[in-house]
Amino acid sequence: MIQTSLVPAGALPGGFRFSAVTAGLKPSGKPDFAVAVADEAASAAAMFTGNKVKAAPLQVGSKHLEHSGGKIRVVAVNAGNANCATGKAGLRAAEAVCTAAAKTFGTTENEVFPSSTGIIGVPLPYEKLIATLPEVERTLAATPEAFSSFATAILTTDTRPKVAQATIHVDGREVRILGAAKGAGMIHPQLVPHATMLVYLFTDAAVAPAALKALLEGSVELSFNRISIDGDTSTNDTVLLLASSVSGASVDEHHEGFRSALREICTSLAKQIVDDGEGVTHVVELQINGGASDADALRVAKAIAHSPLNKTAWAGSDPNWGRLMAAAGYSGAELDPARINIWLGEQKICENGGRVADFDKSRAHQYLTQRNVTIRLDLGLGSGSCVFWTTDLTTEYVHINADYST
Amino acid sequence: MIQTSLVPAGALPGGFRFSAVTAGLKPSGKPDFAVAVADEAASAAAMFTGNKVKAAPLQVGSKHLEHSGGKIRVVAVNAGNANCATGKAGLRAAEAVCTAAAKTFGTTENEVFPSSTGIIGVPLPYEKLIATLPEVERTLAATPEAFSSFATAILTTDTRPKVAQATIHVDGREVRILGAAKGAGMIHPQLVPHATMLVYLFTDAAVAPAALKALLEGSVELSFNRISIDGDTSTNDTVLLLASSVSGASVDEHHEGFRSALREICTSLAKQIVDDGEGVTHVVELQINGGASDADALRVAKAIAHSPLNKTAWAGSDPNWGRLMAAAGYSGAELDPARINIWLGEQKICENGGRVADFDKSRAHQYLTQRNVTIRLDLGLGSGSCVFWTTDLTTEYVHINADYST
Repeated sequence: MIQTSLVPAGALPGGFRFSAVTAGLKPSGKPDFAVAVADEAASAAAMFTGNKVKAAPLQVGSKHLEHSGGKIRVVAVNAGNANCATGKAGLRAAEAVCTAAAKTFGTTENEVFPSSTGIIGVPLPYEKLIATLPEVERTLAATPEAFSSFATAILTTDTRPKVAQATIHVDGREVRILGAAKGAGMIHPQLVPHATMLVYLFTDAAVAPAALKALLEGSVELSFNRISIDGDTSTNDTVLLLASSVSGASVDEHHEGFRSALREICTSLAKQIVDDGEGVTHVVELQINGGASDADALRVAKAIAHSPLNKTAWAGSDPNWGRLMAAAGYSGAELDPARINIWLGEQKICENGGRVADFDKSRAHQYLTQRNVTIRLDLGLGSGSCVFWTTDLTTEYVHINADYST
Repeated sequence: MIQTSLVPAGALPGGFRFSAVTAGLKPSGKPDFAVAVADEAASAAAMFTGNKVKAAPLQVGSKHLEHSGGKIRVVAVNAGNANCATGKAGLRAAEAVCTAAAKTFGTTENEVFPSSTGIIGVPLPYEKLIATLPEVERTLAATPEAFSSFATAILTTDTRPKVAQATIHVDGREVRILGAAKGAGMIHPQLVPHATMLVYLFTDAAVAPAALKALLEGSVELSFNRISIDGDTSTNDTVLLLASSVSGASVDEHHEGFRSALREICTSLAKQIVDDGEGVTHVVELQINGGASDADALRVAKAIAHSPLNKTAWAGSDPNWGRLMAAAGYSGAELDPARINIWLGEQKICENGGRVADFDKSRAHQYLTQRNVTIRLDLGLGSGSCVFWTTDLTTEYVHINADYST
């Protein structure tokens, strides 16, 4: 367990305890099994990857949520193995972990939510996870340090944990929301209501499962579903939100304060994931305006975010804006090249589809030497818009991913 | 002009002369203006990129073909500047080159077909091209050396020229088909009948423009539209087929011998483009079978071909087949993971969606150390299939594209 804490003591939502131990799945020997336990069954809402190949724990977690009526006591997350493309044995392995955790923590297996992240296609050594449950039970704690160890054990190629928290007031009571996320590669979450990014959100508000689901979906669409590192949508992406009700404050799906705090936390975690992307040296905020529709603006953002030629240009701080035009052109969005305007930060570089007369290439290059940059395209057609966060593509990304399993 | 010839003298279709000169658009100072002239107006068929941002020469060439009724005398190709995202001035620049070439070679500008490849968004220095026309005229020749210089001048980041040829017999007469192609990055042609890949095909068969178009479309769909290096569909992709009729042999769109020879040439050029892709160390043939439809098989092939995680795994000769499953899963194709079988070459590595019991990782790794590999997925659903050629993604690709314009 790491000794530093990522959040202040006051940030912990009441009703939850955390732990992380070493089960031996990570070759590094670092903690790889993270567990969160709610004192009483918490309201729960989850979203999973839109990938048609769904890892075993997603199938099991989805079923458990359904059977328990949206109630969860235990979240059991292993890193180092995705338990995906592992067939029926994979489903049995996930179930075995849930059954053992249910016994350890005095609940039913339907109230246990499993998650896995790591390599695909390798059988999950579930016995190693089960063998650690007594140690997990001994070390569970409602402390910042325990939460920090939880947030760290779920990491794989990430270089640092990602947490975000908010405290809001509801009916005179303090309500806390706290989240932990992991993910640095295979990141292009397309979460659907029923994603190798894992996100766990905890609150002590009292929220019914249906309202929790509505609140979660609204926040995820504009945060985790608006990021891409490599365009590869994972088989394991999962976002889980648990509400313990310990604060005594009730929140429904229309509660603006809670909704806005939750969205801010999700956006913060999403941006932290992008910032810690594999080999990343540039974080790019794409602002697309003037689309024929929001959907078209998103098509343009995704085409640019997934274009190797744009991503490598950013790596070289190269203001090769023609590549932006090319990606917009094949995005599938409605387009009139002669209406396109493009800005790098505050510098307009393309007007009506052509280079501005006073194009200052060295200024544009200088701007792109910064780690955080904003690129804005106005398509000049309508009021469709979106904001999307993505990364460059560096030689380091290639090194990391050319040698992941061997 | 290079002195070696890429094709034997007997491979040259009658009725065409070729040249290439240095206009000063390539920073390297190498020849960058390639011209082919037909002795008499040739039947012509062309296909252009599906990208909605289309370079000026594509717009001009398309209009000229329409106005001339499918007849072309002069093909004028510059490398070093794409003349794309250059507005109305770009259209005027392309027209100016055509007008000057028409005057030099005694034809009308509608019988001149312009092409450009290189950086996007920079005004075309068309005066430099026009200034070389007298030299072009002096050096035009119906020789293998002249054709070789044509095939070489059109290159940009390519490391070598790409040519393919066939001689067939039609009604007792010899008919020749000869092609030259360029392209190494921004390669994912999606050619539509009305792509920075440029392909020029010449034949001395007598073929009416409509039949030529039908023959070209059939061949392109299964060759150039089945390759991807980086997934970036260019603004400038163009395939042009000219028929001089000098052989005296008539061919219609149903002529099997011609159709099959043309398809073989297109497939050879497409594979040469992939093989010379930027930074490529692995050429991967994806064979997708068992799809619910051919379109679904193609979706799976493209998702894999565009997945940075698969492309980097290949760079590392890493048999991380879970990444194949993940890409298939988000491809949009109908899928049942439990029915998927995967082979690397002759080695079955995934059966019914899970790792084969006797998985031999070192054998799989060994296979992937070869430059040319075949990956086969059987989706187990129907009779949909496709063959697709793609490449790995290496640190060298990143180097090449991070420093292209600066």
